[in-house]
Amino acid sequence: MASVRAAGRFQPAARTALQAGISQQTRSYASLFAGEPSGPEIKTQIPGPKSQQAIKELDKVFDTRAVNMLADYTKSKGNYIVDPDGNVLLDVYAQIASIPVGYNNPTLAKAAQSLEMINSLINRPALGNFPSHDWAQILETGILSVAPKGLDQVFTATAGSDANECAFKAAFMYKAQQRRGGPDVEFTAEELSSCMNNALPGASNLSILSFKSAFHGRLFGTLSTTRSKPIHKLDIPAFDWPQATFPLLKYPLEEHASENAKAEADALADVERLITTFPHPPAAVIVEPIQSEGGDNHASPAFFRGLRELTVKHDVLFIVDEVQTGIGATGKFWAHEHWDLPSPPDMVTFSKKAQTAGYYYGNHALRPNKPYRQFNTWMGDPARAILFRGIIDEVNRLNLVEHTAKTGDYLYAGIEKLAAKYPGQFKNLRGKGQGTFIAFDSPQRDAFLKKAKTVGVNIGGSGESAVRLRPMLIFDTEHADILLEAMEKIVKM
Amino acid sequence: MASVRAAGRFQPAARTALQAGISQQTRSYASLFAGEPSGPEIKTQIPGPKSQQAIKELDKVFDTRAVNMLADYTKSKGNYIVDPDGNVLLDVYAQIASIPVGYNNPTLAKAAQSLEMINSLINRPALGNFPSHDWAQILETGILSVAPKGLDQVFTATAGSDANECAFKAAFMYKAQQRRGGPDVEFTAEELSSCMNNALPGASNLSILSFKSAFHGRLFGTLSTTRSKPIHKLDIPAFDWPQATFPLLKYPLEEHASENAKAEADALADVERLITTFPHPPAAVIVEPIQSEGGDNHASPAFFRGLRELTVKHDVLFIVDEVQTGIGATGKFWAHEHWDLPSPPDMVTFSKKAQTAGYYYGNHALRPNKPYRQFNTWMGDPARAILFRGIIDEVNRLNLVEHTAKTGDYLYAGIEKLAAKYPGQFKNLRGKGQGTFIAFDSPQRDAFLKKAKTVGVNIGGSGESAVRLRPMLIFDTEHADILLEAMEKIVKM
Repeated sequence: MASVRAAGRFQPAARTALQAGISQQTRSYASLFAGEPSGPEIKTQIPGPKSQQAIKELDKVFDTRAVNMLADYTKSKGNYIVDPDGNVLLDVYAQIASIPVGYNNPTLAKAAQSLEMINSLINRPALGNFPSHDWAQILETGILSVAPKGLDQVFTATAGSDANECAFKAAFMYKAQQRRGGPDVEFTAEELSSCMNNALPGASNLSILSFKSAFHGRLFGTLSTTRSKPIHKLDIPAFDWPQATFPLLKYPLEEHASENAKAEADALADVERLITTFPHPPAAVIVEPIQSEGGDNHASPAFFRGLRELTVKHDVLFIVDEVQTGIGATGKFWAHEHWDLPSPPDMVTFSKKAQTAGYYYGNHALRPNKPYRQFNTWMGDPARAILFRGIIDEVNRLNLVEHTAKTGDYLYAGIEKLAAKYPGQFKNLRGKGQGTFIAFDSPQRDAFLKKAKTVGVNIGGSGESAVRLRPMLIFDTEHADILLEAMEKIVKM
Repeated sequence: MASVRAAGRFQPAARTALQAGISQQTRSYASLFAGEPSGPEIKTQIPGPKSQQAIKELDKVFDTRAVNMLADYTKSKGNYIVDPDGNVLLDVYAQIASIPVGYNNPTLAKAAQSLEMINSLINRPALGNFPSHDWAQILETGILSVAPKGLDQVFTATAGSDANECAFKAAFMYKAQQRRGGPDVEFTAEELSSCMNNALPGASNLSILSFKSAFHGRLFGTLSTTRSKPIHKLDIPAFDWPQATFPLLKYPLEEHASENAKAEADALADVERLITTFPHPPAAVIVEPIQSEGGDNHASPAFFRGLRELTVKHDVLFIVDEVQTGIGATGKFWAHEHWDLPSPPDMVTFSKKAQTAGYYYGNHALRPNKPYRQFNTWMGDPARAILFRGIIDEVNRLNLVEHTAKTGDYLYAGIEKLAAKYPGQFKNLRGKGQGTFIAFDSPQRDAFLKKAKTVGVNIGGSGESAVRLRPMLIFDTEHADILLEAMEKIVKM
């Protein structure tokens, strides 16, 4: 493999035993993304002098304190992000898990140059009032072609947080309607007037139940369900909504089966307690298939089936937040396909890798009883819906969901070996059988992420101590080898 | 003028006296948008058979109950929206006031085809973490080139509601920081833990003060400040935040000067009362320069100066919501330029005609004391920022702000004449000297809007009885004449 790399490029000192069969992998890799750099190349510290200068300029007008690194997207390609100083990094963070098929993907470039895209960019409609004649077709050949089983309708939105808030609103209106006696019962004069004062009975005293360490967004409704980190929540008004215990599983799973089963049973009991006793009864429960921002916390399919059963039992809506887990990264198109649910979720929210956003639903009654109750000016963006259709085409063309399942297994096995070789450095390895949606805890996580840049890899963290791997769907065993080598270098530094 | 129209096109039966000087106007019109239809053309009822079929198809997967009309954007041009049945309507609603320079504007089409646009569409960054090397330049040549006086920084967002919520968050963090004793005072252990329970002291007990009949968006925070209509608010949890009286001016203004001055003084007194006594003290006051969704309610520059003075006096932030009023429609680039404020607003929010969104600010201290407090994955969209730059180029090239001021005066004078001719049909005419941002009350508003379609004009409403005119910036006296004729036909129907 080394021979395909340009001279002067980053060359890991040691090659692992995982590189058997590389020539075959190289071929498959080449077919996935032609013309990608053959490996990382680090020329300067990061940020280098050019980046530092640009960040300084930018900071005059735009807060740059969260800048991780500056990027030159005209030069980035496939799995590789390039910075203005010419540094080339293997990117397994991928814009906080939101780049699906690689930088400057040719299929997407084609979609972006289509007449349809240009038209949708310059003639953005108010979708609820003035949809285009072909909006149904754009939805059916794109967003709805990958709708989760049982959910055949969509409300489109602009970003994940927006999608979740709109799903919450659908849940509140549905439950209030139910309590009122059905969609045909008219609002009372008192409801009509009190809601204008943000007061009961017109406003709602219902809630959304979420889990400890969950992340569902940072707008005021979603932030009230986000329980990941204080820095997200400090000084912001929040609703008095319930948070249930999330089962914190112990690893390796096979050594803690009974403890973990008990943790999940306890968590479900906590959910049931809150549903039945919390002063503001939940209209819905929202859950991530894998808590991402909160630290890559997993639970078993049995837990999620139990959760689905509880919501059915107590007639509470079940919202699955697939903003980060959706679009193939777990080796299924939707992560909740791993669960074998007895009935579909009521709503599934999506964004990030979809490059658009919204919620899927199946029950027609989740459309509120009158128009304009769920409404806003843009209600999404056809341009981004067209881009998602291009992404879906690319995922199908390259069979990227199955590919990611396989590459994930390969990567997981590699990290398992590293964990055995370097005890304590790759703790609580998780994500087995979950595609490339893999994480582990590092004793010096922040230092780990910083060192990763010096060896040519861009990696993100989650929670307090997790290293979260979020490669793109075009990540291959070739890249897994580079990542594994880099991680070995890091822990030896 | 009739000669420039294609045979068979819609021909108003009567021409008004306003059409003097038409040949000159036709020339200026032609230079604004070449190839635009010469007038409306109505072939079927709306929706016609093709539209009805398409709406039926769409409704299977997407709620269509708020559909006003279906559009074929590939055929729409300039000020004219075209539907699948071939109906051509003069559009003075313009996607709820969000199309600035016409359908299929060639300058925007060029921007949409640029390499920069394609790159930004297919490589969407997480802007807070991985901005592009040229993000500062995109901001400076676009969004910031039209920044309101005194505000030289921006936080970018995806839509108006999102922009307002982010501005609220900035206000809450700023005020909490101030109360805490400055940006260097660390959070207490109790704050860090209580915020995770959505509880004080970590969460905030502060509020945002808005006005009766205001509209600031429909997410949970913004909806708590929106007080336009019950249909927006029913069954949704809301924060206990204060709403102040908005002065309801009487028209014509010159006949009610002292009454109106008293209404404004009373409203300001109400604001001061709420700032000083409301149990949840306001961190900020948010106001629209002209309440749009709530019924096109205006107030005088003196009122807004008074409001600015009150916020300074009580050290409350002053947020001006220019989502609907911004980008030239009032004959100034920003509507608050009409006010001659003693000091700039603390934040100005924007979206709609900008086709992107965000809030401008000037005080560096409005950046929270730590990174990641104001943050989300995308934090806006460079593709849409590039489009806004194209819009700004077009506005400057055609001098569209001044143009809109002039066309607005012409249109206003025409409606004044109609109001004199048809007493009671064009009540409370408002928006004099405010560009084309004109409205009046109609005794049968909903019927008025419906009839408008039959005479080839797409018009929107606001509040209970207002007809709100929201032409694009390329609307010219030529179009004003067509609109005036159409409105005369409507009231004679």
